[in-house]
Amino acid sequence: MSDDQLIEIEIGDEIIYEGRVVNLHVKQVRLPNGQPAKREIILHSGAVAVVPLLPDGQVMLVRQYRKAADRVLLEVPAGTLDHKGEAPEAAAIRELREEIGYRANQLTSLGGIFVAPGYSTEYIHLYLAQDLVHDPLAADSDEFIHTVTMPLTEALAKIMSGEIEDAKTVSSLLIAARRFS
Amino acid sequence: MSDDQLIEIEIGDEIIYEGRVVNLHVKQVRLPNGQPAKREIILHSGAVAVVPLLPDGQVMLVRQYRKAADRVLLEVPAGTLDHKGEAPEAAAIRELREEIGYRANQLTSLGGIFVAPGYSTEYIHLYLAQDLVHDPLAADSDEFIHTVTMPLTEALAKIMSGEIEDAKTVSSLLIAARRFS
Repeated sequence: MSDDQLIEIEIGDEIIYEGRVVNLHVKQVRLPNGQPAKREIILHSGAVAVVPLLPDGQVMLVRQYRKAADRVLLEVPAGTLDHKGEAPEAAAIRELREEIGYRANQLTSLGGIFVAPGYSTEYIHLYLAQDLVHDPLAADSDEFIHTVTMPLTEALAKIMSGEIEDAKTVSSLLIAARRFS
Repeated sequence: MSDDQLIEIEIGDEIIYEGRVVNLHVKQVRLPNGQPAKREIILHSGAVAVVPLLPDGQVMLVRQYRKAADRVLLEVPAGTLDHKGEAPEAAAIRELREEIGYRANQLTSLGGIFVAPGYSTEYIHLYLAQDLVHDPLAADSDEFIHTVTMPLTEALAKIMSGEIEDAKTVSSLLIAARRFS
């Protein structure tokens, strides 16, 4: 069957809220059967997530309190694109310097993910970062982060045990492990 | 270092919007350094995503137009918990019947993921479904879905090639492949 039978046509767009990270719109669409429907959509500028891999097979992760999850999560370094025009590669380099204090001289794309395509436009570009050199950049003033270094194999075990539960971290580590094994 | 140095304390909560899928709040928090900050948070009731695995090693996936992604995505069957109290296992069984028309007699947990812990409370419970029998349930009236069956190995190749870009699908398929290989 053709995808044309699945597509929704936008027929209205109401701005509910414009914030720092989240912009909420309620859109009216016409369904494939001609009926109207409402879609609540978060417009998000996109993000990057980076697996920083050291020559000895260790990865550098961050522990960060996430208010929405109401817990401290173990994640790969990541962040939102600063503005619509920021190139994902530039954002990946910047976030690594801000969050773990290292510059990556080698960046390899691991693809990308829509994290919540039912209601958010956010697309996270995933990268593997290698050839890391110490070169810190001042972090965002409202981010409190602890860096943790562990073997990639240990991080993968933490995914399988449920200790790592962040989608971009699960996706990027498992894609990296599959690509480079 | 202790996680206590990372935790934010909620000191205010403003309801911006209450919708069908998305409830937007702006919360005031006190940062670990004592300073206040604003957190834009989507309160979400949670969801399930299910990898339906047939005895011959094929998985059943769905193609669905996602307005937020503005494209048709290839995903594992999934859906939001119907109400706060719906058990994730019950939701997994229901969504499989609605989306692909099969009842799973065997459901195995694959853990779970926070899809966007920076701004959404959504946690997706991941399952592997086996011993599938044809037993359809009427689908949501505003969902238009095509079912696609392919070998798990082909789905994994589509993750690595970038053809599958949905976070819950990437996470659940790669966790399933790692656990049962």
